[in-house]
Amino acid sequence: MKHEMTYRVPYADTDQMGVVYYANYLEYFERSRTEMLRAAGLPYSELEKMGVFLPVSEACCRYHDSAHYDDLLTFRSFVQDMRGVRLTIASEVWRDDRLLVSGHVVLACVNSDRKVVRLPALLVEQCRKFQEVDHA
Amino acid sequence: MKHEMTYRVPYADTDQMGVVYYANYLEYFERSRTEMLRAAGLPYSELEKMGVFLPVSEACCRYHDSAHYDDLLTFRSFVQDMRGVRLTIASEVWRDDRLLVSGHVVLACVNSDRKVVRLPALLVEQCRKFQEVDHA
Amino acid sequence: MKHEMTYRVPYADTDQMGVVYYANYLEYFERSRTEMLRAAGLPYSELEKMGVFLPVSEACCRYHDSAHYDDLLTFRSFVQDMRGVRLTIASEVWRDDRLLVSGHVVLACVNSDRKVVRLPALLVEQCRKFQEVDHA
Amino acid sequence: MKHEMTYRVPYADTDQMGVVYYANYLEYFERSRTEMLRAAGLPYSELEKMGVFLPVSEACCRYHDSAHYDDLLTFRSFVQDMRGVRLTIASEVWRDDRLLVSGHVVLACVNSDRKVVRLPALLVEQCRKFQEVDHA
Repeated sequence: MKHEMTYRVPYADTDQMGVVYYANYLEYFERSRTEMLRAAGLPYSELEKMGVFLPVSEACCRYHDSAHYDDLLTFRSFVQDMRGVRLTIASEVWRDDRLLVSGHVVLACVNSDRKVVRLPALLVEQCRKFQEVDHA
Repeated sequence: MKHEMTYRVPYADTDQMGVVYYANYLEYFERSRTEMLRAAGLPYSELEKMGVFLPVSEACCRYHDSAHYDDLLTFRSFVQDMRGVRLTIASEVWRDDRLLVSGHVVLACVNSDRKVVRLPALLVEQCRKFQEVDHA
Repeated sequence: MKHEMTYRVPYADTDQMGVVYYANYLEYFERSRTEMLRAAGLPYSELEKMGVFLPVSEACCRYHDSAHYDDLLTFRSFVQDMRGVRLTIASEVWRDDRLLVSGHVVLACVNSDRKVVRLPALLVEQCRKFQEVDHA
Repeated sequence: MKHEMTYRVPYADTDQMGVVYYANYLEYFERSRTEMLRAAGLPYSELEKMGVFLPVSEACCRYHDSAHYDDLLTFRSFVQDMRGVRLTIASEVWRDDRLLVSGHVVLACVNSDRKVVRLPALLVEQCRKFQEVDHA
């Protein structure tokens, strides 16, 4: 299952080409996976309180088409892979039935001493409902 | 004396009107007053290590003209007022001899317990060289 | 009447003091007044198609308290003044019953030649429902 | 040859983990490749005036270590590949002799009608001095 949320593009996100500036999609991916984790019952803010941090170790975006000011976008996220110390979350940005941007981030699991640790069993279990094979 | 530095406008800072988005000027003001403090011999990163924090309690901008992509801007900052627990720094954004944006921020001095405290005497003394009456 | 919307703070908006970075509130004000205009029946994207642009000529923020990561904020906006060529919109950022940031922007009305023009009668009329005396 | 420039990290770029937020590196890559193009004698702003646009079609970052507030970073960029309609530019972010982030963007060459076109011969020729095999 993919998690889904909507987002309205503000002027702030556009650039002089009249489209959403490319770096903003990494912010969109953050919003999208944060709401996915919340829907999985594990808000990232709670994870941090438990001493679990998920810094990004890799991020990739493929830009297929442009988003514009005031577009009502749909963000979709799902778990592509989780094993050992890493969680890979894929995200997509859609306008209606058109895929604008797709990509993924690899998150490394670290504790409050910034030491890399295995993904907590609870996190793996709760995220399973959003696990998918990527067909993008 | 006003502190002066230059800054090149990236695509990231523009919006679809083809000009620098209005919120970015508060980032410009931050860059400008940070370099002013460094030139005064008190880098803000050092102040924080001494347990002195300067959160913004008020910020105002007046937009006279637009900055564009790839403009080489000049940022000018100076101390407008410092007394008690507050430091007011005025900043200006120029392109050549044209004033694009002017404004100020009021900084409150707090310690590491987030308690409001008087400006350290050293800070007041070092900042004096950048103190000016605002003629803008 | 004040227009009201909610907003969830992403990691992207925070800084190393653990609070929302001060410039982001001007983005929040944009989101807030954009939804107010939409609720008034005049989406800003439609205004631009009609050749009406509202660049910001002045912006001010007063920071009373901090917003944090994952806070569910409430943005409130209302029309403080509209006459001649200017529209002043006040905005507030709340967390529950606590006012965090308040401020306003002055918008100048320009046509597609960037010439300053009177506010369209339709805009003034539609915005009246969100007109208020500021008690902040 | 790699192009090199320096950049000072502002508060604006940090997040509550006390490090530079991951999306900002795509802005750093933009600053870095813009200055590389300028050093190659072809400022991107000039390319746009010639009707040549280089929207990003793919972007990837690998995060090896964190950058912090007030760090004086070094950005390095070089051309990894250019053929047909695509230009691949690799960028790196260093603090002293430590590689913090590496990645690349693939730029598609389009004309003012947003039609994909071959890279102008002049662009290919001028960029050759910054062409390298990636050893990262």
